[in-house]
Amino acid sequence: MQSFLAPQRLLLGPGPSAVHPRVLRAMSTALIGHLDPIFLGIMNDIQTLLRRVFATTNPFTIAVSGTGSAGMEAAIVNIIEPGDHVVVGINGVFGTRLATIIERCGGNAIRVEVPWGQVIEPGSIAEILQRSSPVKAVVLVHAETSTGAWQPIEPIAALCREYDTLLIVDAVTSLGGMPVEIDQWGIDVCYSATQKCLSCPPGLAPLTLSQRALSVLKARRSPCPSWYFDLSLIADYWAEQRRAYHHTAPISMIYALREALRLIDEEGLPARFSRHQLNSRALIAGLMALGLSPLPPPDRQLPTLVCVTVPAHIDNEEAVRAELLRRFGIEIGGGLGPLKGKVWRIGLMGESSTEANVLTLLNALEEIGIRSGWVSTPGAGLQAAAHTYSVGR
Amino acid sequence: MQSFLAPQRLLLGPGPSAVHPRVLRAMSTALIGHLDPIFLGIMNDIQTLLRRVFATTNPFTIAVSGTGSAGMEAAIVNIIEPGDHVVVGINGVFGTRLATIIERCGGNAIRVEVPWGQVIEPGSIAEILQRSSPVKAVVLVHAETSTGAWQPIEPIAALCREYDTLLIVDAVTSLGGMPVEIDQWGIDVCYSATQKCLSCPPGLAPLTLSQRALSVLKARRSPCPSWYFDLSLIADYWAEQRRAYHHTAPISMIYALREALRLIDEEGLPARFSRHQLNSRALIAGLMALGLSPLPPPDRQLPTLVCVTVPAHIDNEEAVRAELLRRFGIEIGGGLGPLKGKVWRIGLMGESSTEANVLTLLNALEEIGIRSGWVSTPGAGLQAAAHTYSVGR
Repeated sequence: MQSFLAPQRLLLGPGPSAVHPRVLRAMSTALIGHLDPIFLGIMNDIQTLLRRVFATTNPFTIAVSGTGSAGMEAAIVNIIEPGDHVVVGINGVFGTRLATIIERCGGNAIRVEVPWGQVIEPGSIAEILQRSSPVKAVVLVHAETSTGAWQPIEPIAALCREYDTLLIVDAVTSLGGMPVEIDQWGIDVCYSATQKCLSCPPGLAPLTLSQRALSVLKARRSPCPSWYFDLSLIADYWAEQRRAYHHTAPISMIYALREALRLIDEEGLPARFSRHQLNSRALIAGLMALGLSPLPPPDRQLPTLVCVTVPAHIDNEEAVRAELLRRFGIEIGGGLGPLKGKVWRIGLMGESSTEANVLTLLNALEEIGIRSGWVSTPGAGLQAAAHTYSVGR
Repeated sequence: MQSFLAPQRLLLGPGPSAVHPRVLRAMSTALIGHLDPIFLGIMNDIQTLLRRVFATTNPFTIAVSGTGSAGMEAAIVNIIEPGDHVVVGINGVFGTRLATIIERCGGNAIRVEVPWGQVIEPGSIAEILQRSSPVKAVVLVHAETSTGAWQPIEPIAALCREYDTLLIVDAVTSLGGMPVEIDQWGIDVCYSATQKCLSCPPGLAPLTLSQRALSVLKARRSPCPSWYFDLSLIADYWAEQRRAYHHTAPISMIYALREALRLIDEEGLPARFSRHQLNSRALIAGLMALGLSPLPPPDRQLPTLVCVTVPAHIDNEEAVRAELLRRFGIEIGGGLGPLKGKVWRIGLMGESSTEANVLTLLNALEEIGIRSGWVSTPGAGLQAAAHTYSVGR
């Protein structure tokens, strides 16, 4: 079997995003043991840096040894016990998956469903919380990767405080690319993934728990159904005073995450969020000039992932994506579930969110569109994006 | 925060083992998408190469997205359902952990316990299987990382066939360092970890299922309690015909595993197993000359992990390990649970299993022992090891 020669890819799909050379270099650092005193220092660094991106002082702020879905599973199976009532907002793939996980660990998932691309209104959550039976937690997806919808968290967090209910938030496609204010908003459990706006390879899931969530964890009636994700055991490995062996940490991934978080720290969160905002606005302007409209309403569009409806005059969207990959080495995402064949999902996350990438993609799309006859005015997309940049600066 | 400068470490603990520079280089390969056609080709390669080290033709041979314990959890929670009777051999930490996981998913764990360092005799398993109530599976740890005991699998596999019971085997510290014959022995479910004898960084758990195990999986009465580890869903991502999105694969780890498996393929399994045998015998000879005896009986000592009793005249074993790390950069492991403070665990796994490493460790231990007064004859350990090498070749 031959050695692997990776092709050049411009990663503009729903993840993974581009990884900085410094992070790739960190991945190839020689290993040290997962209980080596120096490695334990690295874990402290990870916790310090993660608390900054989560905007929290939560002592329990760690990286789960698995990809984003592992973070999701860890968040749910530790908090939810058989019989618990859990309100879950569903407006895409990931809300649906959350409901599945809630039910697999015996919870009663109360689904608040809206059409894909829309967001959950606080009123519909309030209505359920007002009913008599106590709700253990409300679960929301901050950034729906399958639809590009930006779910407002603050008003629902306020409701959760009012009704003394935990708030669990999926920040997989938001953390590091847009504000996620754990302490200020009052989020109790929040997880993310490394391969989106943190621009680190996939393999770890940042996770933070408030003191309220930790109290609920401690008061469980039954042990966590998962041993691998049992946070009461994992806490002893991440706790600075103990460092008890639970499982072998993915050492190289921890190196990489530390370096990715250092890069975020150097850029600064406000600058990083502005960059994501500007590039997504420019891309949306360019795509609209090509006849592609965002799926979510204007005030609910993510700055990290642009989801646009593929117009009817593009009869084979899959062929367009295949051509982008083959001719230009550009990856964008198609639709999932009911949106299959109907939308494109373009990630501008972390290192992938640059003006050069926005213009490169628009240029490639125009080139394909002109040859296929669905773009008539050359340069319209690029001009619209360029206008956004000139105004935005 | 400063950039991380890794210290030089000679990894001779119970894992991680040393990683070949080619594998480290593979880790720093630029990312491509987890649904990119070229990445799907890489996954096919992983399956082909894993089947070779597992000595199996099982179509279902994959890498679970987590460390070795994730492989353990995936193996158990997919096969065991509430009320199932499961015989589990317990002679160390990992058998104990298996029983915990079996009970957390509702199984009835029938514990066959022997003193740590010993192995499970077929007779004690046969006795249970002969009783009336049907046993769903027998679970064994092939290489007990906490004791260095080598569990014979074949005779118990034959019993499992006789009684139509599944056999689940933990090969975390054996796969790639000593024979693991899935098809020939008749193992139904087997998992391992990348950071032991495969000499890849931690983060993936190789896993293979026989057709019998797949039938049991398909006939489940209830969905798998874990969504992240649900093999019926994960199978659709690894199946060559489908490649349905389940979760984002840890791309860089997959690159690394492919390169680590290529190195194994180049060396060849018979040569690799002989190398592990010779180096462990030399180390044991050297350690015995220093007054340290293996915990398991002579015919049950692993070629991948040497576990020796620390004699009473070494009053502070932890200080010796700390000195090895500080002065020589050598990591070896201490005891876990009831063996804490009583044994040392020295891994000679994958790239770490070399004559140079054996002699370096013996030399460092002698140096410390002479200064501390528990070694009286300089060179005795090195000479005993050298004798093994001269005879062994």
